[in-house]
Amino acid sequence: MESDNANRLKHWIREVPDFPKPGILFKDITTLLKEPAALREAAHLLAERFADRRVDQVVGIEARGFIFAPLVAYRLNAGFVPVRKPGKLPAETAARTYELEYGSDTLEMHVDGLSSGDRVALVDDLLATGGTAKAAADLVESVGARVEAVGFVVELTHLEGRRRLEGYDVVESLVRY
Amino acid sequence: MESDNANRLKHWIREVPDFPKPGILFKDITTLLKEPAALREAAHLLAERFADRRVDQVVGIEARGFIFAPLVAYRLNAGFVPVRKPGKLPAETAARTYELEYGSDTLEMHVDGLSSGDRVALVDDLLATGGTAKAAADLVESVGARVEAVGFVVELTHLEGRRRLEGYDVVESLVRY
Repeated sequence: MESDNANRLKHWIREVPDFPKPGILFKDITTLLKEPAALREAAHLLAERFADRRVDQVVGIEARGFIFAPLVAYRLNAGFVPVRKPGKLPAETAARTYELEYGSDTLEMHVDGLSSGDRVALVDDLLATGGTAKAAADLVESVGARVEAVGFVVELTHLEGRRRLEGYDVVESLVRY
Repeated sequence: MESDNANRLKHWIREVPDFPKPGILFKDITTLLKEPAALREAAHLLAERFADRRVDQVVGIEARGFIFAPLVAYRLNAGFVPVRKPGKLPAETAARTYELEYGSDTLEMHVDGLSSGDRVALVDDLLATGGTAKAAADLVESVGARVEAVGFVVELTHLEGRRRLEGYDVVESLVRY
């Protein structure tokens, strides 16, 4: 559920027409990030949604997921583990390839980034089709860790990304369009 | 100066040989990030180095700069402004191109990301040759904001990146090699 506090965050999100292509009204969170009180509020609210779960590690997806995942980790006293584009992580990685509207994309995570049994919160800025988050969740599970919760700042509900994440107990978003 | 606390962080940084190319011993901070106490300590120490400056906005450089810059912003009660690779930011941007060993690279920032007169701390994970940080600092100044301080988690001193940043009062790094 959107709370009043979360709804207030919408005020700080800017809509930019025709980005990244004509006809798309892009939800730009940079106007929220530069507002100190809104940045704090978003981090607090996301962490709060996971507060009844014991979370060992917060996984964030390159690049915009790197902004909020460490803040949530900080609030929960957890660690942060990055999921990155191919070739960026220096040690041994696991990889998942997933389909896009045109073509495909691949994500990587260090195989020793998580330990078997770790309880994980997955955080990204945006839930659209859910393909990226599902690939990241699969990576987490591939090393024997458990996805306790998934959280987003913004959810585009008409894309029904939530359906791709039906297997997870907690799927939260702060602001919905 | 490296403090004892900062020196303890070195323990959590992994060295990976031959990444991204043969002969390079890569300093991998992912092993620090996943350690909750080390992640907190690094964020606290970086913010502490800027504590005697009034900082309005913390600027972080894509992608690994996105990990620490928002944490420092959080600690300082400032906002966060991303500097990104070309084509990622949806609204009007300023751009800076800088030279690499082979070829060049470009960074972008929203022109309305900062206001004229904003006092800025620039944060990235690594100070190597200093080219990236200098380009980001130039972007900050191009919109009339002021670089109060520059901070890094790791500094590779033999690459002398600090020389490129000589014009700035405060240039801090937590761990040096």
